[in-house]
Amino acid sequence: MQACNEGHVVGYGDDVYTEQAVSQLKNIFGKDTEIYFVFTGTAANVIGLRNITHSFNSVICAETAHIEEDECGAPEFFTGCKIIPVPASGGKINAGVITPHLRGFDFEHHAQPRVVSITQATELGTVYRPGEIRALSEVIKPHGMYLHMDGARIANAAAFLEMDLKSFTRDAGVDVLSLGATKNGGMYGEAIIFMNSGLADFFKYYRKQGMQLASKMRYIAAQFTSLFSNDLWLQNARHSNRMARYLADQIAGIPEIKITQPVESNGVFAQVPASIIPKLQQEFFFYVWDESRSIVRWMTSWDTTPEDIDRFCVLIKQLVG
Amino acid sequence: MQACNEGHVVGYGDDVYTEQAVSQLKNIFGKDTEIYFVFTGTAANVIGLRNITHSFNSVICAETAHIEEDECGAPEFFTGCKIIPVPASGGKINAGVITPHLRGFDFEHHAQPRVVSITQATELGTVYRPGEIRALSEVIKPHGMYLHMDGARIANAAAFLEMDLKSFTRDAGVDVLSLGATKNGGMYGEAIIFMNSGLADFFKYYRKQGMQLASKMRYIAAQFTSLFSNDLWLQNARHSNRMARYLADQIAGIPEIKITQPVESNGVFAQVPASIIPKLQQEFFFYVWDESRSIVRWMTSWDTTPEDIDRFCVLIKQLVG
Amino acid sequence: MQACNEGHVVGYGDDVYTEQAVSQLKNIFGKDTEIYFVFTGTAANVIGLRNITHSFNSVICAETAHIEEDECGAPEFFTGCKIIPVPASGGKINAGVITPHLRGFDFEHHAQPRVVSITQATELGTVYRPGEIRALSEVIKPHGMYLHMDGARIANAAAFLEMDLKSFTRDAGVDVLSLGATKNGGMYGEAIIFMNSGLADFFKYYRKQGMQLASKMRYIAAQFTSLFSNDLWLQNARHSNRMARYLADQIAGIPEIKITQPVESNGVFAQVPASIIPKLQQEFFFYVWDESRSIVRWMTSWDTTPEDIDRFCVLIKQLVG
Amino acid sequence: MQACNEGHVVGYGDDVYTEQAVSQLKNIFGKDTEIYFVFTGTAANVIGLRNITHSFNSVICAETAHIEEDECGAPEFFTGCKIIPVPASGGKINAGVITPHLRGFDFEHHAQPRVVSITQATELGTVYRPGEIRALSEVIKPHGMYLHMDGARIANAAAFLEMDLKSFTRDAGVDVLSLGATKNGGMYGEAIIFMNSGLADFFKYYRKQGMQLASKMRYIAAQFTSLFSNDLWLQNARHSNRMARYLADQIAGIPEIKITQPVESNGVFAQVPASIIPKLQQEFFFYVWDESRSIVRWMTSWDTTPEDIDRFCVLIKQLVG
Repeated sequence: MQACNEGHVVGYGDDVYTEQAVSQLKNIFGKDTEIYFVFTGTAANVIGLRNITHSFNSVICAETAHIEEDECGAPEFFTGCKIIPVPASGGKINAGVITPHLRGFDFEHHAQPRVVSITQATELGTVYRPGEIRALSEVIKPHGMYLHMDGARIANAAAFLEMDLKSFTRDAGVDVLSLGATKNGGMYGEAIIFMNSGLADFFKYYRKQGMQLASKMRYIAAQFTSLFSNDLWLQNARHSNRMARYLADQIAGIPEIKITQPVESNGVFAQVPASIIPKLQQEFFFYVWDESRSIVRWMTSWDTTPEDIDRFCVLIKQLVG
Repeated sequence: MQACNEGHVVGYGDDVYTEQAVSQLKNIFGKDTEIYFVFTGTAANVIGLRNITHSFNSVICAETAHIEEDECGAPEFFTGCKIIPVPASGGKINAGVITPHLRGFDFEHHAQPRVVSITQATELGTVYRPGEIRALSEVIKPHGMYLHMDGARIANAAAFLEMDLKSFTRDAGVDVLSLGATKNGGMYGEAIIFMNSGLADFFKYYRKQGMQLASKMRYIAAQFTSLFSNDLWLQNARHSNRMARYLADQIAGIPEIKITQPVESNGVFAQVPASIIPKLQQEFFFYVWDESRSIVRWMTSWDTTPEDIDRFCVLIKQLVG
Repeated sequence: MQACNEGHVVGYGDDVYTEQAVSQLKNIFGKDTEIYFVFTGTAANVIGLRNITHSFNSVICAETAHIEEDECGAPEFFTGCKIIPVPASGGKINAGVITPHLRGFDFEHHAQPRVVSITQATELGTVYRPGEIRALSEVIKPHGMYLHMDGARIANAAAFLEMDLKSFTRDAGVDVLSLGATKNGGMYGEAIIFMNSGLADFFKYYRKQGMQLASKMRYIAAQFTSLFSNDLWLQNARHSNRMARYLADQIAGIPEIKITQPVESNGVFAQVPASIIPKLQQEFFFYVWDESRSIVRWMTSWDTTPEDIDRFCVLIKQLVG
Repeated sequence: MQACNEGHVVGYGDDVYTEQAVSQLKNIFGKDTEIYFVFTGTAANVIGLRNITHSFNSVICAETAHIEEDECGAPEFFTGCKIIPVPASGGKINAGVITPHLRGFDFEHHAQPRVVSITQATELGTVYRPGEIRALSEVIKPHGMYLHMDGARIANAAAFLEMDLKSFTRDAGVDVLSLGATKNGGMYGEAIIFMNSGLADFFKYYRKQGMQLASKMRYIAAQFTSLFSNDLWLQNARHSNRMARYLADQIAGIPEIKITQPVESNGVFAQVPASIIPKLQQEFFFYVWDESRSIVRWMTSWDTTPEDIDRFCVLIKQLVG
């Protein structure tokens, strides 16, 4: 980012840094995609959805989805749409849970189903296989619906699947993708990838009206270039996945702790004795995922070290011992 | 309505007809309530909710609720709120299903729970008992939340409960009530009752901005006066309830037909052979409630006659016979 | 309306009364128009505009327009658009005042101009001539913009122009028309006429989400049928225009009173001694239009009588005498 | 920013960097203010306004204001409010132009006036004197209205006035301030200062729902700390003001060019021969402000050098020569 800090460039994205970052991402997703930057993951989701919905539409997602649980109603507020949460085992949804909501088409009393949104990796750290994504796509496409993917942690999914990004997004039927960087080492800034350029006809206006047009966009672009011009994005994700795996292995032998989700990305969900949570939180920051069942979420990151994990596990063993 | 058609009065509700109707409703619900008229049941719900929410709030309701299923996303669009549908047995919700959603308070990532909305009689024709309503109220009031009631068919509930309207609304903890007239013999127009006048401080602006201010409000008011100046509202409701009861009794003996909900108001839900539905619909208008399970909804009305029911049942018996 | 009160019909507009009213209006405006009913004039304007705008658009109108002055921000709230008020001499706008705002196209920082909205007859009682409307249309059509007409008092304009409704609407370039009935003798209900059926593709959803779908639409339709199946609408308008003319003539000779606008429909705008206003208002209801300049607005109506005018003028002469 | 890039901190603003930046700004504006960060200047304006308005309010501003001209309708979309542009000489508004709009209070048909918004330095490069600001405040405060200031270039105003920031904001009656950094050397991020902490009760929810909550807020905070822990912000502004002054002086002697606004900050507005504009733009980036009158806007910046200006002026002289 230092590099793009020198000299003056035209604002609002008409600069070589933005052009370069877009070009690199097009190498991944296809020349005929439309690629734009916004500030936050919530904005990537919301403005992506806004481009493919009318206010009278509905968006179906997992009951654990970020757009349902953690965006303070921004999707509803900004798109006007109804968000329909459906039961999600391990954070994933499938044809069985969405099909009951594929109804009421053409009936004006009913919010018109328009989008299914999935998160990859999911909020529970699990990862959709390409076939699972394609299956969802095939169920909804006959209704003229779109498949949206919240990819705030898509790098972790790619690292787990050992597949290129396009194979389990565009090739699997995803129409619009929020491509995260902040959780993978970036300072700020996320990308929205429209797999079909026609979906982005009004994007620039929705972005500006959504207060997401960066005057100095080159700084966001530079981060993407830094991550995607080589495989830094993948290295970061592999590392954080490995650290989660390492953490899971370390605590697997502690009988008081039960890992509740498959560890497929950079998060470990565990049921722990309630009494140890506050003491752990004095030393390490993490969220309690489900207070009633004493389940916590431990996230690893591109800069987590094995020593961090070791210290964490030593403390856990002390506390439960 | 003819009566108020003569002469000129001041528009937008500053007239004696509106004053009289409000006064009659205050006799029922209390002098310190605030009472206003709008055009439709959807508007009564949505504008009622808007007065007691901020855009970052959430509203919890039955998955079968009208605000969830049949208002084309108007609640989300107009209030900005998240609507959270919860499982509803027989159309009713209880503490058990709402408690898991009473969380995330003060956490800015999470839409802040603000309202529980129930429908009385429910969309499935069942009726909340006062104790069930009070129990919901007691669960949410400690969180500073409000209890909203969609009373599009509240007259039918009153007829079933044989109780006055206040006893199972205001006295049971309801804060805001949509009081229906259209489904009970009116031409158009519904009332919103704010049990605490402080909740309606900005009502008049939200109603106007919500396109629900009638210039000739006296015509709505006259309908309420006609219904509530004597017990016409109750007679109408009793009649339609009786007709539903009569229908249920008539078909109870038909083995091919299974009544799926308790008949507590003016609707009968029944599982019928799929093949007879289109033939029945040629003669009588009704909605298929659940196509996958072949469940239909038969509504009776203030002007349904026993002869109507008899003709209907004769046809059914022919068709299944 | 009594007639359509008998018997049961299917709700929400799928009935013969609605069909008949639509058919009559299509006889006026053309078979290929799309015609729908809503409850209020504000709703007709707002939902009409919503169908032809995106939230990032702007709507240019007279600074005196109802959508700017008297709808409590409903157009902004419901469409998300910027409303741009421009100077309006006698309530009318022209190419000279709108052209400076036809800029910023394709520039994402700027709300994109999309609609010019005019009122006929205007809020100041004046009437656009067909050539004036066509001139506006010709200025904006090259930009892909639409011409919207708020016709809450269009009957009065037709009576003044002595022209059929189509000649100064569709034929003059109007794309969407709010056709008023309430101010011309109706109880409630207005029509929206889309001159190009493609503009109404999503209308039914926007109407429902806008809380304007009448379950018993036949009652609105019956009023339109009553007004438009013969020339009742025109008789009413002619009468109220005549009464305004009569009023203007009566007060023309009073030196203390100055008529400030051409009297072309059913309103008389007059500058009067400030001291007489409260006394006049004790006997007759009217609005003060501009308090700073002591200008009042006197509206006549389909049921105003010459005797009403005479009594009014006698009182004025007493007060100023 | 490098400094805050090391180690892990808690996200979403609960970190020492954010605390430090807030503390420094409180030293300027007062301990009892509320200070928050968002991403863009548009967001600072819009979310600031949202906290002090209801959707049925109106906001009065200069016809040249950024919120009117350059935010693609984001204020209307996000607040629901009507924006009322008023004539602005040199970008400034005064009591004379706003008073005609201080009307319609308590009248539900009329959007309720709630805020006057001014820009400091204005979009035309001029600067309000403290007395001018105080005069606006005194006109609106009796109506319970708020004074909002868009301070995207407030540093330039402070440099011109040679006054501390508080003296012409809080002390002059400003209630909410957008405090810009991006245009004064920052990469991204702006602050909102609520002078009365009660105005920000729901801020955190509006920010999150407005998609403006930075997960790594320390990076925004670090920029503010860098600018405001010493007088870097002021040095940057003084420099850019001097460069504008220098530019104005250089071109003052060119008869073909007419400076159209007082040069009080870092912008020079000039009427130039239309023919030279494209040639100048080949070498230097700037906006044409008013195409019809051939007026351009030349902005200087914290890193503009006298040599840049010299080269620019040499080119101009060549082109007009």
